[in-house]
Amino acid sequence: MRIVLNKIVIFGVGLIGGSFARALKKAGAVRTVVGMDRSAASLARALELGIIDIIGDDMADAIKGADLVLLAAPVAQAEAILSALAPHLQAGTVVTDAGSTKSDVVAAARRALGGKVAQFVPGHPIAGRETNGPEAAIDYLYVGKKFVLTPLAENSPDDIERVAAAWQACGAVIHRLTAQEHDKVFAAVSHLPHLLAYALVDDVANKPHADLLFQFAASGFRDFTRIAGSSPEMWRDISLANQPALLTELDAYLAQLTTLRGHLAAGDGAALESVYANAQRARHQWITTIETAEAPRNKDSAE
Amino acid sequence: MRIVLNKIVIFGVGLIGGSFARALKKAGAVRTVVGMDRSAASLARALELGIIDIIGDDMADAIKGADLVLLAAPVAQAEAILSALAPHLQAGTVVTDAGSTKSDVVAAARRALGGKVAQFVPGHPIAGRETNGPEAAIDYLYVGKKFVLTPLAENSPDDIERVAAAWQACGAVIHRLTAQEHDKVFAAVSHLPHLLAYALVDDVANKPHADLLFQFAASGFRDFTRIAGSSPEMWRDISLANQPALLTELDAYLAQLTTLRGHLAAGDGAALESVYANAQRARHQWITTIETAEAPRNKDSAE
Repeated sequence: MRIVLNKIVIFGVGLIGGSFARALKKAGAVRTVVGMDRSAASLARALELGIIDIIGDDMADAIKGADLVLLAAPVAQAEAILSALAPHLQAGTVVTDAGSTKSDVVAAARRALGGKVAQFVPGHPIAGRETNGPEAAIDYLYVGKKFVLTPLAENSPDDIERVAAAWQACGAVIHRLTAQEHDKVFAAVSHLPHLLAYALVDDVANKPHADLLFQFAASGFRDFTRIAGSSPEMWRDISLANQPALLTELDAYLAQLTTLRGHLAAGDGAALESVYANAQRARHQWITTIETAEAPRNKDSAE
Repeated sequence: MRIVLNKIVIFGVGLIGGSFARALKKAGAVRTVVGMDRSAASLARALELGIIDIIGDDMADAIKGADLVLLAAPVAQAEAILSALAPHLQAGTVVTDAGSTKSDVVAAARRALGGKVAQFVPGHPIAGRETNGPEAAIDYLYVGKKFVLTPLAENSPDDIERVAAAWQACGAVIHRLTAQEHDKVFAAVSHLPHLLAYALVDDVANKPHADLLFQFAASGFRDFTRIAGSSPEMWRDISLANQPALLTELDAYLAQLTTLRGHLAAGDGAALESVYANAQRARHQWITTIETAEAPRNKDSAE
């Protein structure tokens, strides 16, 4: 569906929200973008860069007549923003978000929006970059990337379609999961690896001979720990927001490591090799699949 | 020290041995390179590519009058090669290796070489690529890379210097550790991360919803698990060869994960953030240091 939105409001004019605005503008899919942000400097910069057209200062004015509202602020702020927005939310406005966890955002939306929760269509764009802020926003961030819709039972098909069409206009490929499925999947393939990478670097850094260790760490260590370069505050929030699913994945991994430890202690080379070989095979198959599917230009993508 | 070797013998004419030969030839630091390998096809290819000058078929002939012998075959073959070589090893020939573990190679050398063990100067070049075999060999593989010498108490200063000078001629930067220090360091910054990456991919691949998980795995997962694309046989051998040090590191990591699990289960955001922030800070400091030290062209390095 081709979409043209008359007015959108973006809470958080950094990488995620700013790139959404830029992409919609480039596609000719929006007329007016209103920006809201805790940081006045970010708002001024976003205006200067042409990411937004108007700085919203009054909540009622800002969201009045909006076709779409995107929450692109840190997940921990979602409930406060939705609560402030709720009294002014008119029929006809659809609210969505870009949070990395979904069950907690859905719960926050139910508390904050009450009877208006049907207007909230949660989602998660699987894209990112190493950099942040309005300067980092680019119009092609979402091209060829997945956008995961996790609609509520209360959402109308038209409202879901409006959110999907907006992200499609940004170049994203739409997928659908329940919020629970989403959180389980990302606990395994994103949240757990982040925790493991942070754990390894902290472990190494706290050893008495840490300087010697870092001196000889090479590219394998660099790639393995790249995600430990991510924002600690953001990942603290994600870890807590997705605590049940992350605990389940962490426990499974601890059990796996304990088994491997047993193989290693027993000198069981065949058992070790079997695990390593299965992993290598599965990864090779996965890489082959994504390399076929992904455009080469989306090199700096991250989740 | 500028070095010109009259004759060297390389066991294993693949990436590591072949790149050593190419680099020495480019530097004008060797006259004749003799190649030995389990694979006749690899030998023929190495000869064709100009990596080696002579295919050695008789051990006594091959090592006769050699200034330097490099073991660049898989670590598990070191003892068999050294045992076959021992009876023919003349005074004046220095033997070295390129194995990823050192204590086990030293023990093997003591068993195989007996009274001639003083002629064995162990080492480990910290370089590699994703590809293997004679075709993968390049003359700049070791430029700017670390070479770790782990000399024996029995080694003469001149023999140690000959090995160091050869690797310096290849462009490597020489470091010295004891074999025990080496194995402890690489257990922490290389062997453990490999085991952890293999464990994660195997864990994900064995789940009933593995297809769904791989479908949403993104670049964070890709980088974290890149080293799980390495040869399972090679990493089985390294895991077993460095078993005591790797067990120590694995146990420390399991304790670290168990602590983190406690923070997560208790919803202790401050404790989680403190670990994440310490890791991010330490990694940032490390990356800044290596980016200053490393030449940009050595992009495809690995350990």
